[in-house]
Amino acid sequence: MSKEFATRAENYSEWYNHLVQKADLAEHSAVKGCMVIKPYGYSIWEKMQQALDQMFKDTGHSNAYFPLFIPKSFFSKEASHVEGFAKECAVVTHYRLKNGPDGTIIVDEDAKLAEELIVRPTSETIIWNTYKGWIQSYRDLPLLINQWANVVRWEMRTRLFLRTAEFLWQEGHTAHATSQEAVEETERMLDVYADFAENWMALPVIKGRKTANERFAGALDTYCIEAMMQDGKALQAGTSHFLGQNFAKAFDVKFTTKEGKQEFVWASSWGVSTRLMGALVMAHSDDQGLVLPPKLAPFQVVIVPIYKTPEELEKINVRVEEMRKALVKKGIRVKYDNRDTQRPGWKFAEYEFKGVPIRIAIGPKDMESGTVEVSRRDTKEKEVLQQVDIETKIEHLLTQIQDNMYKKALTFREANMHRVDTYDDFKKVINEQSGFVYAHWDGTPETEEKIKNETKATIRCIPLKQNEMDKKPGVCMVTGKPSEQRVIFALAY
Amino acid sequence: MSKEFATRAENYSEWYNHLVQKADLAEHSAVKGCMVIKPYGYSIWEKMQQALDQMFKDTGHSNAYFPLFIPKSFFSKEASHVEGFAKECAVVTHYRLKNGPDGTIIVDEDAKLAEELIVRPTSETIIWNTYKGWIQSYRDLPLLINQWANVVRWEMRTRLFLRTAEFLWQEGHTAHATSQEAVEETERMLDVYADFAENWMALPVIKGRKTANERFAGALDTYCIEAMMQDGKALQAGTSHFLGQNFAKAFDVKFTTKEGKQEFVWASSWGVSTRLMGALVMAHSDDQGLVLPPKLAPFQVVIVPIYKTPEELEKINVRVEEMRKALVKKGIRVKYDNRDTQRPGWKFAEYEFKGVPIRIAIGPKDMESGTVEVSRRDTKEKEVLQQVDIETKIEHLLTQIQDNMYKKALTFREANMHRVDTYDDFKKVINEQSGFVYAHWDGTPETEEKIKNETKATIRCIPLKQNEMDKKPGVCMVTGKPSEQRVIFALAY
Repeated sequence: MSKEFATRAENYSEWYNHLVQKADLAEHSAVKGCMVIKPYGYSIWEKMQQALDQMFKDTGHSNAYFPLFIPKSFFSKEASHVEGFAKECAVVTHYRLKNGPDGTIIVDEDAKLAEELIVRPTSETIIWNTYKGWIQSYRDLPLLINQWANVVRWEMRTRLFLRTAEFLWQEGHTAHATSQEAVEETERMLDVYADFAENWMALPVIKGRKTANERFAGALDTYCIEAMMQDGKALQAGTSHFLGQNFAKAFDVKFTTKEGKQEFVWASSWGVSTRLMGALVMAHSDDQGLVLPPKLAPFQVVIVPIYKTPEELEKINVRVEEMRKALVKKGIRVKYDNRDTQRPGWKFAEYEFKGVPIRIAIGPKDMESGTVEVSRRDTKEKEVLQQVDIETKIEHLLTQIQDNMYKKALTFREANMHRVDTYDDFKKVINEQSGFVYAHWDGTPETEEKIKNETKATIRCIPLKQNEMDKKPGVCMVTGKPSEQRVIFALAY
Repeated sequence: MSKEFATRAENYSEWYNHLVQKADLAEHSAVKGCMVIKPYGYSIWEKMQQALDQMFKDTGHSNAYFPLFIPKSFFSKEASHVEGFAKECAVVTHYRLKNGPDGTIIVDEDAKLAEELIVRPTSETIIWNTYKGWIQSYRDLPLLINQWANVVRWEMRTRLFLRTAEFLWQEGHTAHATSQEAVEETERMLDVYADFAENWMALPVIKGRKTANERFAGALDTYCIEAMMQDGKALQAGTSHFLGQNFAKAFDVKFTTKEGKQEFVWASSWGVSTRLMGALVMAHSDDQGLVLPPKLAPFQVVIVPIYKTPEELEKINVRVEEMRKALVKKGIRVKYDNRDTQRPGWKFAEYEFKGVPIRIAIGPKDMESGTVEVSRRDTKEKEVLQQVDIETKIEHLLTQIQDNMYKKALTFREANMHRVDTYDDFKKVINEQSGFVYAHWDGTPETEEKIKNETKATIRCIPLKQNEMDKKPGVCMVTGKPSEQRVIFALAY
């Protein structure tokens, strides 16, 4: 199949677009900037949602649902928030259509809203306006709420999953009695995201803090997880924000402390989106198609029968049904494709392209010898295994694949981390090698901006954990001024 | 607690509004017509979603996601659809805001959309426009897809859950090669809805077909399930539509048959919404608060300790922890409320109001005698049970409560079904007794309209199954013209 579309080396971007669409993950819709998430893609997203949702509940959060629309005036209440979000957004101005003179339907000008409504780009404002009614006393805190929702941020240049006008996400919004509790929550959820990325997506991530320039509009501090894609670029895979008392002040949310004093509430918010789907594709897939980590694959095993006569197929069907049941009993998601409308070769290519972690082929010879042929999608290794107790072997192999995918991504990232000390070296590495660059920076937005303008590289994060070498103070590669620690630069999605 | 708010007999509507808000199910938001679904209410909705989603998957459906926005012109393509939906809807006309001269933010008139976008009131148009690209051959059929989404239908007079501008729902959209298959799908999903209502919500429903007047805009036939609320009014709890080839023709979706001919595709669509939350409350709850069926209760059992000293509590804690583990092992959702900030009496009232199916109280005497006091929310019966093997008894009791709630609702409905043969009797029953009225009708929209205008009663459905008496032909109670079978009239939500 590799000849049908660009390889990663030939054109990474084209390779990605082709894969997303032809593997039935998503496609562009008739509405500019909005995507359709197709059943196969949505099934992966559902598995992400289920895993994350359980992790949120295990850390004490409940789900709720807040309105899609936000009154325009709400955005003005938090000054930096409006700058960051209210500008590029969908604005609802009318609530009725009518028949026009020529038979088409037109907007009814009599049905103009007194105040325009914004389709939520994020929900801090409407949620903190609601929290005002929910929080009176320290007994009402902490308030730990998450919402699964669609949001809209108007985008002119869109890419499936990575940047679309409408996307799906979850947004956590928590309220706390103290600054410390809110910071702890911010960090806890960053850990949850990192845990999810590493253990479910098989995606190694670096936890860090954003610079002031890159902070969420309205936050005092933004934490993020950054992952490396196979072209060496960075992708921000999740963010967790410490909002201080900014939104509590904007919406006048106070509580009575144990001591009877009135204080503003402290806040965090955190989110991941369907962007993770893009990260999943770009981190693992190859020139033959998707490579899915077993934990998120819609089906983990596909079984393909090889046969010439209906009698052969009938016998294989019986044997496979036993195998299928044994696998399902282990909690393994199995698909048996015995359609007679497609040949085995077509099916092999199809499931390879769709990234199914394990393929089992079984033919008349296997029936005789009590074997099956097992192929791994990640390494493309094949082996012949006995049918006896196949479910245990497959279970074990799925764990191996999940681990191997993580290790492979980690090895790739380690091989593409660079430490540079001069701006000349920096430019050279960014231009010629890509990857993550650890370098010293003087901490000013001006230097950050200069580097960005001259190289397109941005500071992805100030990493929370570093090895001894990187943690040491140094001098900024551009200005020579003092730097506390190395930060990570990269080209980014 | 009954004194604090209106009883059902005093003011059913006020009783409902109070319950929904004070039991933390939902509240009105700052955005006119839009609700906030609170964590306790959302947790019930999640359980509904999970059960329905599994039922959809078990019947071969996959989830997908389509855009929130629909180009205005799409609505014009199906004539009756635009009449039914495009009129009362949220219209997006601009995609940017900017700073106004006085510092407030205003709509940027330079960012006017060439074509207005409608926030989806339902997704037939955008989905069938997409299906055009997905369906070429009979091999692509059937296409069985569902979407969980928010939709917006502008409403001036709103009621929490029952009628809101934005609500959450699922919408199934299927494509078939033949009319018969599409009809079978329409009926299958009606059965799924009835199954869900009866077995999860403990809500008996009547399956039937809508009259032409009440049909979905764009459907050839609309099937529904109708439930009776405690005030005798009907609530439509789900609909399933046979769309014929209307949308396939509007969006030019043809397929090649096995014989190589080009034909338009046949369609169904079906949906239930957060309206079910309203039905759940109105069907079962009482003057003391919510009554939740065990299968949908966020927690099915609450355990409240009765103690005077910290030592007593400590001992109870240990015993309860054993019990809690045994219950959880049985898959029972348990909450242990040993907060010392509230007294047992407050907790009893609170969980009664929240509709928790079973309350277990345990005090020092119980600790001595190895007993607990178990109270059922549905019948308010209490009994003292031995702690030994309590999990089995509770499991059994939960099943009993679920069954009892269904039977109680069914008995109520049977007691409020009336058969009338004259229009005078009809008016009398509708005015004085409420409930469902089985009567003969001549099948014309004119008579239906006349009855509606004169009595406010509508034809809820032409029931699919009837007893022998009702199935027999008769004469219309209004015009004396022939009638094929009795239909169900009622006042409705």
